Amino acid sequence: MKKVNVAVVGVGAVGIEMLKVLKRRNFPLAGLKVFARSSRKIKVDNDAYQVEEISSSGFKGIDIALFAGTEGEKGAAVLYAPEAIKQGAVVIDNGADFRLKDNVPLVVPEVNKEKISSHKGLIANPNCTTIQMVTALAQIHKQFGLGQIILTSFQATSGAGKKASAALAKETEEIIKRNTGRDIDNWDKKIDSDFSALGRQIAFNVIAKIGSFGSEGYTSEEKKVVNETHKIFGDNTIKITATCVRVPVHRSHSEAVYFTTRRDSSLEKIANALSNSEGVIFYKEQNSFPQPLVCEGKEEVFVGRLRQDPANKNSYWLFCVSDNLLKGAALNAVQIAECLLL
Amino acid sequence: MKKVNVAVVGVGAVGIEMLKVLKRRNFPLAGLKVFARSSRKIKVDNDAYQVEEISSSGFKGIDIALFAGTEGEKGAAVLYAPEAIKQGAVVIDNGADFRLKDNVPLVVPEVNKEKISSHKGLIANPNCTTIQMVTALAQIHKQFGLGQIILTSFQATSGAGKKASAALAKETEEIIKRNTGRDIDNWDKKIDSDFSALGRQIAFNVIAKIGSFGSEGYTSEEKKVVNETHKIFGDNTIKITATCVRVPVHRSHSEAVYFTTRRDSSLEKIANALSNSEGVIFYKEQNSFPQPLVCEGKEEVFVGRLRQDPANKNSYWLFCVSDNLLKGAALNAVQIAECLLL
Repeated sequence: MKKVNVAVVGVGAVGIEMLKVLKRRNFPLAGLKVFARSSRKIKVDNDAYQVEEISSSGFKGIDIALFAGTEGEKGAAVLYAPEAIKQGAVVIDNGADFRLKDNVPLVVPEVNKEKISSHKGLIANPNCTTIQMVTALAQIHKQFGLGQIILTSFQATSGAGKKASAALAKETEEIIKRNTGRDIDNWDKKIDSDFSALGRQIAFNVIAKIGSFGSEGYTSEEKKVVNETHKIFGDNTIKITATCVRVPVHRSHSEAVYFTTRRDSSLEKIANALSNSEGVIFYKEQNSFPQPLVCEGKEEVFVGRLRQDPANKNSYWLFCVSDNLLKGAALNAVQIAECLLL
Repeated sequence: MKKVNVAVVGVGAVGIEMLKVLKRRNFPLAGLKVFARSSRKIKVDNDAYQVEEISSSGFKGIDIALFAGTEGEKGAAVLYAPEAIKQGAVVIDNGADFRLKDNVPLVVPEVNKEKISSHKGLIANPNCTTIQMVTALAQIHKQFGLGQIILTSFQATSGAGKKASAALAKETEEIIKRNTGRDIDNWDKKIDSDFSALGRQIAFNVIAKIGSFGSEGYTSEEKKVVNETHKIFGDNTIKITATCVRVPVHRSHSEAVYFTTRRDSSLEKIANALSNSEGVIFYKEQNSFPQPLVCEGKEEVFVGRLRQDPANKNSYWLFCVSDNLLKGAALNAVQIAECLLL
């Protein structure tokens, strides 16, 4: 396999995972550059990396640039992707800025890798919440056609970056310290903090808001799920709606997905589709439902609790869990890069 | 108001709250007995109570017996309610044993208090998950008729009793101790324990199983929501389905509720119905969504994030939070007792 020069842009939660994934999957690197706002040396596991200050001229000779991106603010790709592309790189952007643009493929390799070849220099990585859902549902959609998807998510703090995970750790530590030895009924659980990472206290709480509020009362995260799923499946007629909720879990998103197929299906047929889904580990046994703590660090989307809604024809629930920093971000981006090599 | 003799049976998480609620609401007590498996003295807030060993003969002279019950195992009501009733008491049972019996009213006062008068000695308190959902939906159902309810719950550990809340505290403390000062990426979050309270580790995790697995892949908790909601609304034709999930929150359940009305409705009309719902605090402002940490210790059901599903006619989301030990258990039982006094 041909070796290529790769740049990783950003060394936050996702950028670090990109470096780990490139190494673990033996990505054929001719060279590797790591860019961020400021230069410094970092250590990831036991490997040292020299981080260089990002600049438009730095992409010379780079074949593939992985932008770690951010969900909230404008990502580095807005500033630097055009120049990187001009210098010959293919940009794979984990940020949200380009995902819905007409000439940008939005790709989950298990679902629509055939879109990659049509790129004009930039390929977008979908939102973590979307990626694991469409990976779980892709075969079902292919075989039976999805008519409706109703999603409720349980999202990990790391989806909002390292600061948010650190906030969960710090808040929890403070509450434990304050209450050690005290009867749980009398715990003092509300702490004072600036809550700058997530807007509210997340320790021993849930926050029914991810991203910012937009039109019709939906958050940006909830709109991403709708718009990105439509684009990835290439079908705007699927009725999709979501409630996205942050939970005090560090890593791996969980999703309760209710869905209806357009064509006649059965529990057995849906189970077969899941068993034959690329990138999916399907738990057939009802007591083996997936958990975020167990899925952390794993590459697949874990699906369990498949069951029929007895009240509605062709309607089902599943519960899927996946590592939001891996399949939900870094791994999916590297998988796209691997497809580019073929 | 006439004063009555009350017995509280059980001094677990719910029994203790019953004692607190009776006091806080100035329930007109002529006398109060507290029964449990063994006699002992307990202190609740700053009040001392003498707990007596439960026996069939102990209910003599009791007007109202509040059984704190348990969700999982057969409650004390199975053994002692028949004798208490024979001795003239009206039993209000928080346990699950009698809820679906034909001659037992299943009551949430804000929804169907008219059923109370038909009791034959025993009135059942619904499951916590059901209570807050039907309280939130009652006015909407009355005005527009519910056609479908799709529920995903985020349930607190205290719903599984004091042992489960203690497990969350203990597990969290161990993880914090083990990782203090360590970078969050390298936390060691999986601990060894017997997990006897909840079957799995709950700290920094979610568990997509509440109760035991039954037919068709649904858990006992998920079936309770369906059957109890049908009975409380007096309408078995409402299509109801649920996914119930435990989250690392000590107290207050959260619920993402997707619902469809049979008759024509509008966002404004649904908002008006919620504003005029008994026992409901409706947050109209989108940024004031309810949180378990904030609702703990409060009596109402807090509803926010009301929005329409643009893809489906007469379909909406709401997010509701309530203290599972109060409105979800102890408070609802005491409210039923208050209705008996009128």
